[in-house]
Amino acid sequence: MMPIDATHEPSRKSWVESANSPDTDFPIQNLPLGIFSRDGIDRRPGVAIGAHILDLRTLDAASLLPEDLSLLLKGGDLDPLLAAGVDYIGRLRIIVGDLLDARCDPAVRAAIPQDALVPMDEAQMHLPSSVRSYTDFFVGIHHAEEAGRIFKLNPLLPRSYASMPLGYNGRASSVRISGEGVRRPLGQRLIDDRPEFGASRWLDFELELGMFVAGANALGEPVLIGEAEQRMAGFCLLNDWSARDIQFWETAPLGPFNGKGFSTTISPWIVTQQAMAPFRTALMDRIADQPHPPAYLIDADDQANGGLSIRLEAHLSTAAMREAGDEPVKIVGTDARYLYWTFAQMITHQSCGGTNLCPGDLVGSGTISGPNREMFGSMFELCNMGELPLTLPNGETRTFLEDGDEVSFSARCERAGFAPLGFGSCTGRIVSALPL
Amino acid sequence: MMPIDATHEPSRKSWVESANSPDTDFPIQNLPLGIFSRDGIDRRPGVAIGAHILDLRTLDAASLLPEDLSLLLKGGDLDPLLAAGVDYIGRLRIIVGDLLDARCDPAVRAAIPQDALVPMDEAQMHLPSSVRSYTDFFVGIHHAEEAGRIFKLNPLLPRSYASMPLGYNGRASSVRISGEGVRRPLGQRLIDDRPEFGASRWLDFELELGMFVAGANALGEPVLIGEAEQRMAGFCLLNDWSARDIQFWETAPLGPFNGKGFSTTISPWIVTQQAMAPFRTALMDRIADQPHPPAYLIDADDQANGGLSIRLEAHLSTAAMREAGDEPVKIVGTDARYLYWTFAQMITHQSCGGTNLCPGDLVGSGTISGPNREMFGSMFELCNMGELPLTLPNGETRTFLEDGDEVSFSARCERAGFAPLGFGSCTGRIVSALPL
Repeated sequence: MMPIDATHEPSRKSWVESANSPDTDFPIQNLPLGIFSRDGIDRRPGVAIGAHILDLRTLDAASLLPEDLSLLLKGGDLDPLLAAGVDYIGRLRIIVGDLLDARCDPAVRAAIPQDALVPMDEAQMHLPSSVRSYTDFFVGIHHAEEAGRIFKLNPLLPRSYASMPLGYNGRASSVRISGEGVRRPLGQRLIDDRPEFGASRWLDFELELGMFVAGANALGEPVLIGEAEQRMAGFCLLNDWSARDIQFWETAPLGPFNGKGFSTTISPWIVTQQAMAPFRTALMDRIADQPHPPAYLIDADDQANGGLSIRLEAHLSTAAMREAGDEPVKIVGTDARYLYWTFAQMITHQSCGGTNLCPGDLVGSGTISGPNREMFGSMFELCNMGELPLTLPNGETRTFLEDGDEVSFSARCERAGFAPLGFGSCTGRIVSALPL
Repeated sequence: MMPIDATHEPSRKSWVESANSPDTDFPIQNLPLGIFSRDGIDRRPGVAIGAHILDLRTLDAASLLPEDLSLLLKGGDLDPLLAAGVDYIGRLRIIVGDLLDARCDPAVRAAIPQDALVPMDEAQMHLPSSVRSYTDFFVGIHHAEEAGRIFKLNPLLPRSYASMPLGYNGRASSVRISGEGVRRPLGQRLIDDRPEFGASRWLDFELELGMFVAGANALGEPVLIGEAEQRMAGFCLLNDWSARDIQFWETAPLGPFNGKGFSTTISPWIVTQQAMAPFRTALMDRIADQPHPPAYLIDADDQANGGLSIRLEAHLSTAAMREAGDEPVKIVGTDARYLYWTFAQMITHQSCGGTNLCPGDLVGSGTISGPNREMFGSMFELCNMGELPLTLPNGETRTFLEDGDEVSFSARCERAGFAPLGFGSCTGRIVSALPL
């Protein structure tokens, strides 16, 4: 695992005042990486610090980055840096942290161009990598069990569930950054047990964690479980929007397709593996009576520390709520510890099958539900497939998402003796379907 | 549909003599597009003509291409040309055809640099596009029925089969060009009904047709059925290698993943939609007692001409056969007319769900089997899941593929009054699994 070191020292402060607020997602202990622009066109790499973005291109123009890192930051995405690997990402985090530290030498600090610090509300965020491929797993075991319960399956879990991380290839071209609208898809769904074409009626979210791949393995070359940590650049929030009616009709025998291909939203910042070092943990849900996973998926360090302790929340606001000035309402609170498999195991399982994972590829965890209703990471679970509507504070009810509904995920990592940090927001608002 | 015009005139000959052989896949009526290099590095666009490749970069350097086409051919893949769309592809085919025509003005012909004509056996082929995304469909109905029969399903076909083209997102990063080795994958498979990790024992091929996407639709913007032909650049052969043991254990409930993620091989040439104009046809397998497909998938012209009449063959050679100097043996002969849905319907179905299809994306048809055993497009069907071994002329038997086996697909389009044409080869040889 990545070491806990001086970069995590909780007393460390930044001269960027907003980074020292106890509520910020982006203290100097975080320093996540992203791609932003001021004009929608000139995309450049940046680091989140409090309510600002440190513009790495401008920093580089002032000769404040070493040449090897500079060369990796010339493009409009982070692919070259991710290709170089986690050690380069870690070095960049240390260099940027030293520059942003309140104790930074005044002469060095004076060399940082003033316009290198961009207020977040003046910036537009873009996808941090090219996301050539997107794999979505299904390792949220409470979600899998809840689905089994709702569909009255016996056994609740697929037989292979405890034997390997189950996943499928998602649609990379429809991955979008937080804030973009999500159009309600058209498709075939069963109405009175007959297929009809129209707008989805059962539009849902799925609360997931995403992971960005660093480095690359050649086709046919496995990433062994002990090496998989070296392939994780960092993490983001991921909403695997799902049209349940379209999904259920199409899913046999090939799995999810159009029911999920219309949009996947991610939060814009890659929270690095280095920043997450204090928040590693064992996972909670190793099922005692399940067979041990096969040897290629077992690593003692990964078993002890391969999990992530991240408090996750989903908030909902409706058009009527925003009209009335009401705050979004929290509808889910769960934790990434409820995953059944680690990201290292996902990487190893997919690559052992021969697949090449490339820099900037995105890997989703699957819906992260907990054992109780308020921890369920989708409407489908929260409302027991339409049977138990959510009642919102203004009296509106929901079983699935309506046009104008906005779903926003947030995340928080907290541990005694460490500065809390967050992920920023993963938000999308439902746009009405095209007229037929 | 694309018109049949003077470019299809069967009496047309080229001054490239090998293009006039009745056996060539690449007469002047074909002119498929690809990416080649002489050194493995300097990738450039080319057109197949007989046993040669016309180097479009060299042609362009001699000012023989109009500027707007020239600008689309500067890169190491055909993405810019595919993005420009089918009309640009058609214009390029006409211009190149006029230059290669035996009746070409001698002064013009003299302007073509001698080194613009590269012998195919001196060239290495590369992926013609970046293949950002790869969708694989399941519209070979005899394959679907055969799978149902082997697994004793009732009904044989998924209920949704006749209602829409079923598909899934494949792994784009593992698409490779003909000739590259295919490493036998490692993975979990059931041995005596218990999952074990090891090399696949049931390695198989799937004989499919591929289609390259031209142009682009925005996320959420459907391609209507009447417009879908404008989104097809052309076609290739596609081998959807499948590890059946890995596939069967992992497939519920998310569909194919590692069982197909280790390699997909395609033939190197994009046989353009324009070249295929004489070989359009109605599909053979519209099931009389099935409900009509929904209106968004119906177009009269597509119903009448949306199919492709292509004779498809698979040949097998084993290490022992090659050692003895034996020719490969034909093990499958089928026809693309046995598909149940058209590529236009596949494009419309996927895009109506909201997915954006991008220039150079690859779409696979699914295995193209016919109604009889010799037409079955995979070992799994040919050998009834191991029960009916194939006996080869040298006495070897096969139920699945062994290390060293080489599978090669070929294709031929024939119609009275037209020059026959082909697709080139889609070949892969099985390389032994990594040691555990």
